[in-house]
Amino acid sequence: MREQAMATAIAASQAAVGVSSPNPPVGAVILDADGAVVGVGHTQPVGGPHAEVMALRQAGPAARGGTAVVTLEPCNHTGRTGPCAQALLDAGVAEVRYAVADPNPQASGGAAALAAAGVTVAGGLGEADARRGPLRHWLFRQEHGRPFVTAKIAATLDGRIAAPDRTSQWITGPQSREHAHARRAQLDAIVIGTGTALADDPSLTARRPDGTLHTHQPTRVVLGTRDLPPDAGLRDGAAPLVQVHSHDPRDVLAALPDALWILVEGGPGIVGAFLAAELVDEVQVYLAPTILGAGHSAVHDATVTTLSQAHHLRRESVTELGEDLLITLSPR
Amino acid sequence: MREQAMATAIAASQAAVGVSSPNPPVGAVILDADGAVVGVGHTQPVGGPHAEVMALRQAGPAARGGTAVVTLEPCNHTGRTGPCAQALLDAGVAEVRYAVADPNPQASGGAAALAAAGVTVAGGLGEADARRGPLRHWLFRQEHGRPFVTAKIAATLDGRIAAPDRTSQWITGPQSREHAHARRAQLDAIVIGTGTALADDPSLTARRPDGTLHTHQPTRVVLGTRDLPPDAGLRDGAAPLVQVHSHDPRDVLAALPDALWILVEGGPGIVGAFLAAELVDEVQVYLAPTILGAGHSAVHDATVTTLSQAHHLRRESVTELGEDLLITLSPR
Ligand SMILES: NC(=O)c1ccc[n+]([C@@H]2O[C@H](COP(=O)([O-])OP(=O)(O)OC[C@H]3O[C@@H](n4cnc5c(N)ncnc54)[C@H](OP(=O)(O)O)[C@@H]3O)[C@@H](O)[C@H]2O)c1
Ligand SMILES: NC(=O)c1ccc[n+]([C@@H]2O[C@H](COP(=O)([O-])OP(=O)(O)OC[C@H]3O[C@@H](n4cnc5c(N)ncnc54)[C@H](OP(=O)(O)O)[C@@H]3O)[C@@H](O)[C@H]2O)c1
Repeated sequence: MREQAMATAIAASQAAVGVSSPNPPVGAVILDADGAVVGVGHTQPVGGPHAEVMALRQAGPAARGGTAVVTLEPCNHTGRTGPCAQALLDAGVAEVRYAVADPNPQASGGAAALAAAGVTVAGGLGEADARRGPLRHWLFRQEHGRPFVTAKIAATLDGRIAAPDRTSQWITGPQSREHAHARRAQLDAIVIGTGTALADDPSLTARRPDGTLHTHQPTRVVLGTRDLPPDAGLRDGAAPLVQVHSHDPRDVLAALPDALWILVEGGPGIVGAFLAAELVDEVQVYLAPTILGAGHSAVHDATVTTLSQAHHLRRESVTELGEDLLITLSPR
Repeated sequence: MREQAMATAIAASQAAVGVSSPNPPVGAVILDADGAVVGVGHTQPVGGPHAEVMALRQAGPAARGGTAVVTLEPCNHTGRTGPCAQALLDAGVAEVRYAVADPNPQASGGAAALAAAGVTVAGGLGEADARRGPLRHWLFRQEHGRPFVTAKIAATLDGRIAAPDRTSQWITGPQSREHAHARRAQLDAIVIGTGTALADDPSLTARRPDGTLHTHQPTRVVLGTRDLPPDAGLRDGAAPLVQVHSHDPRDVLAALPDALWILVEGGPGIVGAFLAAELVDEVQVYLAPTILGAGHSAVHDATVTTLSQAHHLRRESVTELGEDLLITLSPR
């Protein structure tokens, strides 16, 4: 029952990814004294209620004597909102089960405070799933002090991302593009090089299938020394624009102190620079079932001259996206 | 029972692929009057017995009143060996079930001859599996008058097959190399360009895991105008060497009038030339989980300038070979 509730809490927290940054995207489920689900919630945008409070609001008096199942240890810290541990005590919850202990010294101590007040408290429920799931990027930031970096490649079987005449729309199919697009609303930032910005004049906004903008938009980051023209699509005001006038990927990370998850979208020189700097935590290849035989290759790393310098990855998963394959890998 | 026997016959015929060329790699199973398997055989090298004769020899007198299950309609043609239809009659077989009718006018008529002699005869048993299986390349040759052409690419995720300094050993892992090697004994020819021949000095022979040579060796074909040095590995006499002093893939096919299945092994210019000539029937990509970021791309097709000229393929299968993926595709 509690395992099932944790799966529900993890699924609910998916909706908070990106939206809750820089706070963790947490999910919570309240079970009444008989074990029935009476509330489900997830973290709201900064300044709004945390997951536990959302779930408790839904549960109302049914929370009394019940159990709270939360993906992250309830916070004990009065920030923009009151501590969640106190909210759970006020609601009369008898038991709290959470997945992951809060590694953040400022916010942790919630479990101890609840236990001291007589609540039955235990962590570790569904912990592996919660760590791999929506909390992944936030946990990474707590541990490494920088955002989790996904590098994206959308290429032909021979690794081309554009033809000799620079035509590149569309290398991959509609399902791949939809998949990449749906993720934008979960990202804190999308990084491209000046080459791509000037060649493609993209907007990089997160839009719904009907074309309307999502509430949460990733910050658009352009890396490179050249300037963008005044009428560049990226200057449309639909989302923040950050220009990093350098060639150093570290400057991108420094410019995004609150970001949990960023996507390096290309082009070849930017993906290569992040790889060479060992700042890539995940590679996603959208592989089209085509061969071009000429044109621009997906990655350009100016530091590589011989095979032993290749970047070695571990395959995590292979998914069919229509005619394309999505291959997800992590660095070794 | 007969379905099971056909599956056995198809599996047995796998051992004849390459070995039987230019004859079809056929498999046969003899069931006695009670339906028990009493003989299994496959086509022997040219001049040797056909599958039915091999299976009948094993069955001996037990074939009388029994059933022959064969992947291809028994031949009715006295070539280097007597007709199989006659051998089945002589053995007193009461019933013959085959998968695929012989499209070759010289050899066909076996079913009619058997029926005329009072044997119960029917085709179409397991036909789809037999057509997709070991008979595939031979059937292709009957229909199109040229060998089935598989193009192989062994590349990184960014489509590189060699680093800038031309180092390329090893891009893919041991399981991929073993897989590619095991297939050599089934091929009629392996085609490379003079560029690869001169750069890598390969032997292209089919060897067993212990290093000994297989009995059947594919013909080694080099396409290009430059000559090979006198001490080239391809001149070792371990298998035939054919030099095609041209840039036209059609000349390769013309030089191999008996071949059923050939592999275009590279390099980039040769794979590109076969693609541009629309002479590729299957593409196999051994994809390593690495990114190189520089070096030689897997395919070079000098005729391509814009995205609409890309070669479109259909994904047939994805197989894990250790850390690599093997992606098999067919042209659209
Ligand atoms: N299919 C896809 O997934 C995809 C995705 C993106 C792009 N593309 C295609 O890629 C092509 C653009 O290629 P590109 O190479 O010009 O684009 P790019 O990688 O976006 O931009 C390269 C530029 O980025 C700047 N830069 C910043 N840091 C760098 C570093 N460490 N190393 C190298 N350069 C650095 C330099 O510009 P400054 O001179 O301004 O400093 C450099 O010229 C376009 O045709 C686009 O359509 C395809
Ligand atoms: N990883 C792998 O799977 C793999 C496989 C093979 C090769 N490789 C690597 O690929 C590199 C060789 O590259 P490459 O491009 O020199 O090799 P290539 O494609 O084997 O040879 C190119 C040469 O083939 C001849 N040729 C014949 N017909 C042609 C046509 N229609 N179009 C173009 N050329 C034609 C030309 O030589 P002439 O001037 O003599 O006419 C041309 O220079 C080596 O570094 C090798 O290690 C890797």
